[in-house]
Amino acid sequence: MNKKIKAAIIGATGYVGQELFRILYSHELVEVKYVTSVSYTGEKYADVYKNFNEKTDLICTEGDIEKIAEECDVMFIALPHGIASKTVNIRILEKCKVIDIGADFRIKDKTIYENWYGVKHLGEEILKEAVYGLSEIHGEEIRKARLVANPGCYTTCSILSLYPLVKENLIERDSIIIDAKSGVSGAGRKPDTGTMYCECNESVKAYKVCTHRHTPEIEQELSNAAGEEIKLIFTPHLVPMNRGIIATCYAKIKGNSDYETVKRAYEKYYKDKRYIRLLKEGKFPETNMVKGSNYVDIGIGIDKRTNRIIVIGAIDNLVKGAAGQAVQNMNIMFGLEESTAIDIPGIFPI
Amino acid sequence: MNKKIKAAIIGATGYVGQELFRILYSHELVEVKYVTSVSYTGEKYADVYKNFNEKTDLICTEGDIEKIAEECDVMFIALPHGIASKTVNIRILEKCKVIDIGADFRIKDKTIYENWYGVKHLGEEILKEAVYGLSEIHGEEIRKARLVANPGCYTTCSILSLYPLVKENLIERDSIIIDAKSGVSGAGRKPDTGTMYCECNESVKAYKVCTHRHTPEIEQELSNAAGEEIKLIFTPHLVPMNRGIIATCYAKIKGNSDYETVKRAYEKYYKDKRYIRLLKEGKFPETNMVKGSNYVDIGIGIDKRTNRIIVIGAIDNLVKGAAGQAVQNMNIMFGLEESTAIDIPGIFPI
Amino acid sequence: MNKKIKAAIIGATGYVGQELFRILYSHELVEVKYVTSVSYTGEKYADVYKNFNEKTDLICTEGDIEKIAEECDVMFIALPHGIASKTVNIRILEKCKVIDIGADFRIKDKTIYENWYGVKHLGEEILKEAVYGLSEIHGEEIRKARLVANPGCYTTCSILSLYPLVKENLIERDSIIIDAKSGVSGAGRKPDTGTMYCECNESVKAYKVCTHRHTPEIEQELSNAAGEEIKLIFTPHLVPMNRGIIATCYAKIKGNSDYETVKRAYEKYYKDKRYIRLLKEGKFPETNMVKGSNYVDIGIGIDKRTNRIIVIGAIDNLVKGAAGQAVQNMNIMFGLEESTAIDIPGIFPI
Amino acid sequence: MNKKIKAAIIGATGYVGQELFRILYSHELVEVKYVTSVSYTGEKYADVYKNFNEKTDLICTEGDIEKIAEECDVMFIALPHGIASKTVNIRILEKCKVIDIGADFRIKDKTIYENWYGVKHLGEEILKEAVYGLSEIHGEEIRKARLVANPGCYTTCSILSLYPLVKENLIERDSIIIDAKSGVSGAGRKPDTGTMYCECNESVKAYKVCTHRHTPEIEQELSNAAGEEIKLIFTPHLVPMNRGIIATCYAKIKGNSDYETVKRAYEKYYKDKRYIRLLKEGKFPETNMVKGSNYVDIGIGIDKRTNRIIVIGAIDNLVKGAAGQAVQNMNIMFGLEESTAIDIPGIFPI
Repeated sequence: MNKKIKAAIIGATGYVGQELFRILYSHELVEVKYVTSVSYTGEKYADVYKNFNEKTDLICTEGDIEKIAEECDVMFIALPHGIASKTVNIRILEKCKVIDIGADFRIKDKTIYENWYGVKHLGEEILKEAVYGLSEIHGEEIRKARLVANPGCYTTCSILSLYPLVKENLIERDSIIIDAKSGVSGAGRKPDTGTMYCECNESVKAYKVCTHRHTPEIEQELSNAAGEEIKLIFTPHLVPMNRGIIATCYAKIKGNSDYETVKRAYEKYYKDKRYIRLLKEGKFPETNMVKGSNYVDIGIGIDKRTNRIIVIGAIDNLVKGAAGQAVQNMNIMFGLEESTAIDIPGIFPI
Repeated sequence: MNKKIKAAIIGATGYVGQELFRILYSHELVEVKYVTSVSYTGEKYADVYKNFNEKTDLICTEGDIEKIAEECDVMFIALPHGIASKTVNIRILEKCKVIDIGADFRIKDKTIYENWYGVKHLGEEILKEAVYGLSEIHGEEIRKARLVANPGCYTTCSILSLYPLVKENLIERDSIIIDAKSGVSGAGRKPDTGTMYCECNESVKAYKVCTHRHTPEIEQELSNAAGEEIKLIFTPHLVPMNRGIIATCYAKIKGNSDYETVKRAYEKYYKDKRYIRLLKEGKFPETNMVKGSNYVDIGIGIDKRTNRIIVIGAIDNLVKGAAGQAVQNMNIMFGLEESTAIDIPGIFPI
Repeated sequence: MNKKIKAAIIGATGYVGQELFRILYSHELVEVKYVTSVSYTGEKYADVYKNFNEKTDLICTEGDIEKIAEECDVMFIALPHGIASKTVNIRILEKCKVIDIGADFRIKDKTIYENWYGVKHLGEEILKEAVYGLSEIHGEEIRKARLVANPGCYTTCSILSLYPLVKENLIERDSIIIDAKSGVSGAGRKPDTGTMYCECNESVKAYKVCTHRHTPEIEQELSNAAGEEIKLIFTPHLVPMNRGIIATCYAKIKGNSDYETVKRAYEKYYKDKRYIRLLKEGKFPETNMVKGSNYVDIGIGIDKRTNRIIVIGAIDNLVKGAAGQAVQNMNIMFGLEESTAIDIPGIFPI
Repeated sequence: MNKKIKAAIIGATGYVGQELFRILYSHELVEVKYVTSVSYTGEKYADVYKNFNEKTDLICTEGDIEKIAEECDVMFIALPHGIASKTVNIRILEKCKVIDIGADFRIKDKTIYENWYGVKHLGEEILKEAVYGLSEIHGEEIRKARLVANPGCYTTCSILSLYPLVKENLIERDSIIIDAKSGVSGAGRKPDTGTMYCECNESVKAYKVCTHRHTPEIEQELSNAAGEEIKLIFTPHLVPMNRGIIATCYAKIKGNSDYETVKRAYEKYYKDKRYIRLLKEGKFPETNMVKGSNYVDIGIGIDKRTNRIIVIGAIDNLVKGAAGQAVQNMNIMFGLEESTAIDIPGIFPI
C-alpha cells in the first residue's frame, strides 16, 4: 500500500515554510494538504510565491490546528516563538506528529527559555516529551518522538561543529568562542529597515552581540555532551547573501591533542552520518558548496602557535538549518529512508 | 527491466556541465558514466566541484569520444564552439545519441555560422540532421533525433517570448528589439578580468552590442516561424547576479490587435507546454521565480500610446537555458516523461 | 567676503537627502543650516545616518518652510510628490531659491502631471516659472531661476542620451524605445516587501511596464527638442545593486546617417558640457565607471543590419540623477563654478 | 608660495593604486606626476580605469624609480611584497619620501618577515628606519620619517581595535582571537578562479586559516604595546562585497574590569584621534557606515557570562586600510593638516 503521509505546514508563507513546501513537493511519499498563513489567508499559494505557479493549487488557510491534527499525519510549525507552545497540546500530539521549526520546545529548562525569550512558556505540559531534532545526536529519540523541536539554524551549525570536541573532552570547556556569519534570509520576510536591500547589501555587521537567543540552545546541547555546564560566546554577523551560514568556532586545546586525535573524534561520531561531510586536512568549507543541500561541511584546523583549535562548519540555513532538517526528522519519525527528498548535491553557482 | 540510460558529459567542469551532472544525479533512469575535462583530467570530480563531495566518485577523464560512444547511450557536449563539429560524426551518431549544448549545430546555414563565429564549420556532414532542441517548437523532430543542438540561453528565452507573435503575424517583422539581461554564470568559469567579482559586482553594462552570436540563432528560428526573413536587434547586458536571464522584447503591433488577441496566440502555442508559464495580464516575470527550475515565465504588455507590444520572458540560464533543457530533450529522445528530474519549483530565495 | 550660502535640506533622511548632505558637506561655499525629517524629528542626524557620526551635530527638525525661507539662501526639497507643490509659493520664492528634487514642478502641463500622478497639482501659481533643471539643455534659464525642478533619475539619463538625435532630426520620432535598468536605491528607504534584500537580490525584473511616471517627463523634453510631439516606450527594470542607472535607447535611423554624422550631433551639443562624457566608437558605458560621480557616460552604436541606432547612457542615480545634479544647479544659480563639490572621478570598485 | 607636492604612484593600476590616485586627485596641495604600471605601460590611465576619463591625461610609465625620486617629493609604492625592499634604498630616501603600501617594511624582525613571506628580505639597510605607518600610535615618528610602511588592511583594523586593551593591560594576553571579514577588493585585480564573480558571490569562506601574513604584523604592534610577546589567532574570511573589513576581536578580561574601565582606556588613547570613532555602549559598527571614508568605527561589548570582551572594528579596506591611510601619513610627513583630501563622511548606500 502506498498511502502518502498527509502533511500540513503551519506558517507556510515565511521563507522557511516555503522552502519546506518546495522540499516536500519532491517527496514522493508525502502530500501537503494544508498551507496556513495569517497574512495571506484566502490567497492562492502560487500567488504569494510565484515560483509555485502551476505547481500547486493550494489556498492559504487560517489554520485550525485541531482540524489539521485530525486530518494530517504530520504538522510542521514555522511560526514566531511563543505561538506553538500556546497551541500544541497533548490532544494534538495524540493525533498528529508535530515538528516545530520555531524555538518553543528546544530549550528544556523553562526558566532559561523565559529569560532569553522574555515570554512565559505556555506549553510546559508537553515540553518534557519534546525531542531536540538534531538527528546526528538524538536520532534514536527522534525515531520515537511525537514532538520534535527542530534546531535553530546557527545552532545546528555550531553544535555539530563542536560536539565531538566537547564529548571527547578535547578542549577547555570555558574557552569556546563561536563567530557565525549568516545570509539575510535568516531574518525572515517581514519588511524592516534593517533588511532592506540597500541597508544590508555590500555591508557586514555583527548583531545581538552577547544576547542572541541561539546561545542557550547551543550551551544546552554542548553541556549535555560534556556532562557539565558550558558557557560560551556566540556572535552572529549579517552577511550580504541570501542563504548560508558559516560558524567559525575557536577553543583552547586540552593537553596535547594533535590533528589526528581530533580527526578521530570527529570520525567516531560522524563517519556514518549521511549529512555531515568532514573535509580533508587543510580544507575549510564555504557556504557555496552546501547551498540548496542538507549537508554540514566541517573543516578542522590546529594552531600550534597558540594551542587553539578552529573548527569551521557551513550549512544552508534554510535547508539543514530549517526545512531540510525538518524533513530529515520527519523521514526518521516515519521510518522512511533518512535522505528521501533531500538527497541532492548543493546547487552552484546560484 | 529498468536498465538505466548511460550518459557521458563531455566538458563536465564548466558551469553548464556541472549543472547537468547535478540534474542527472536526480534522474532515476540515468547513470552518468563519464565526466570529461581538459583542465582537470585525472582529478576527482568532487574535488573540482566540492558540492559533489560524497555524491560521486567519478574521475575526470580526457574524453575518448569513440570509446564513450561505444559505451554510452547519450553524450552531452558542453564545450566551446568549434570542437563538437570537429569531433562528432555519423559513426558516433550511429552508436550514441548526442546533445550538443554548444553552438556548432544550431545554425543551419553554414555561411551564417562561419560569419558570426569566425571559424570554419567542420561538421557539415551531420549539420543537416541536427535538430534545433527547442522542444516547445520542434518536439516532434527531437523525438526522432540522433543529434540535438541545444539552444543558447539568450535564444531560448528570446525565441519563446516572441514565437507566437511572429507565427501568427501579429507584429511588424522589422520592428523587433530584444533587450536582454543575464547573470554572470553565462560567461563561464574561465578567469578573466571582466568577470572578476569587483569588476562586475554592483554594475550593469551592455556588451557585444550589435554583434552577439545569439542574434543569428534567434533570427533563424523566428524567420522559420514567419516564413520570411527576420532581422532584429539583440542587446545583451551583464547584471550582477549569478543566474537568470530576462529578455525584454519590443515590437510594433500590426493592425489593431489587442491584449486578448495576443493572449490567444500565446495560448494556442503554449497552453499544453509544460515549461512555459504565461503570466496573468499586468504581471511580468522576475528571474527570482524561475531560478533552479526549467520554466520560462512570460508576461505580455500592450502600450496603446505607442502601439507597441512588450513581451518579457525569464529563465534560469543554466537550467532552461542549458542543462535543464538538455535533460528535457534527452527525456523526449528516449521516450521518457518530459519532466523527469526537472520537475521542481524554482528555489527562492537563493 | 566669504559669506557662505545657507542651505536647508527638506526631507534630509531619505537616500537622496542624505546624499545631498554628503555632497554639500564638501562644498566650501555652502553651510547646511537645516535638515528636516518627518520620521526622525528631534533625532540627531548622525544617529539616523551613522556615516555622519562626528561630521555633523545637526538635529532633524520638523521643517517650518516659512522660517527656513527667511533664514536660508537655498532650500532643497527631497520629498514625495504632491508636497512641494502644496508648500512652496511665491512668498517663499521671494526670499529663498528652491530646488525641488521631487516631481511636482517638472511637468509643465498640469493635466499631464495630474493624469500620470493621480493627484491635483496645487502649485499652479508658480509652476510656470519653474525651470527644468537639466543644465546641459536649460543652463541659461537655470542661471536666472528662483525655482528649479530637478529632473528624475531615469529621465536625466534618458533625455541626455537621446537629445542630440531628436534635436538634429536624425531618427524616426515614433521609433524610440528606452529600456532602463536601475539599482535599488532609486526605490527609496521606506520598508517594503519588494525592496527587501532577499526579494530583489540576485534577480532582475521589469516594473511599472508602460506606466512609469518618468515617461511624460522624457516625452516633454524630447518633444520640446523636436518641435513636435514625441511618444515613446520607457521600461524600467530593477537590478540587484545599490546605485546606478543604465538606459539603453533604441531608434530607427532617418535617412542614411552614419556613425560620423551621429557623433557630430552629440559633439555639437555636448562637447563643452563638463559632465557628459562621449565614449569612443565601439565603447559603451557601465555604471561602475560613474558611481559616486556626476558624470553621464554615453556610448553610441549603429546597427546597419536593421538600420537602428543604440545609444546607451549611464549615471549614478543618486548623484547626476538627483543630489549631484541639484548641487550642479545650485552652483549655476548662485554663479559659482558649476563643478564645485562634485568634481570627483567615479569611485571604483565600491 | 603654494608649490604643490609632486607625487608618484608606483603600481598605479591595482585597486589600491587607483584609489590612491582618486584621493590625491582631490588633494589641493598634491600633483600626481607619475603613475607606473608593469601591465599597462604606455596606456592612458583613463583607458585602464575609465572612471578617470576626462580627469587625467597621464600615461602609465614603466617606473624608473631613480628618476622619479629626482623629480618627486613623495613616492607611494603599491606593489606585491618583495619588490619595494629590492628597489628602495638610502639614495632614494635622500631625495624623496617613500610610503610603501606593501608589506616589505612593516615587520621589524627580518627573520619573522622571511618566515611568513617565504622570501629573503633585500632591504635590510633601510628596514631599521622605516616607521610603521599607524599614525594613531606612531604619529610622532611618522612626522619625521623618510620611509613609512603603510599597515595592512586587516592589521589596521585589528590593531586599532585592540591597542588600548593591551596597552592598559586589561586582557589576558594569550587569549586574543581575531575573526575578520573582508570584501573581495582586498584580493586585488589579478584574474583568478577564486575571485571570479560566480565563485565568491553569495558565499562566505575562511581562508589562510592560521597562516595569514597579517598575523605577525598584528602581533608585532600589540607586543610592542604590551611590552611582552603576544601571540594570537587571526582568521580572515572572504565576504561577498566589494569593500570593507570588520574585525571581531575576542579576549578574556583580566581582573574585574567593567565597561566603564574599558571605555576609559579607549578614550585615553583615541579621544583626540580624528579617524577613530568610538561607538556608544551597545552599538557596533557596520562596514556600510565607513565606506569611502578614512574612519575606523569601534564598538565594545562585555560578556559577563563568560568574562570576555568583544571589540569590533570596521574600516574601508581601500581607504583607512590602504590609500586613505597613506594620504593621512603623507599629510603628517609634510606637515599638512592630517585630514586634507580624506575628510569626507562615508558614502551610503553604495
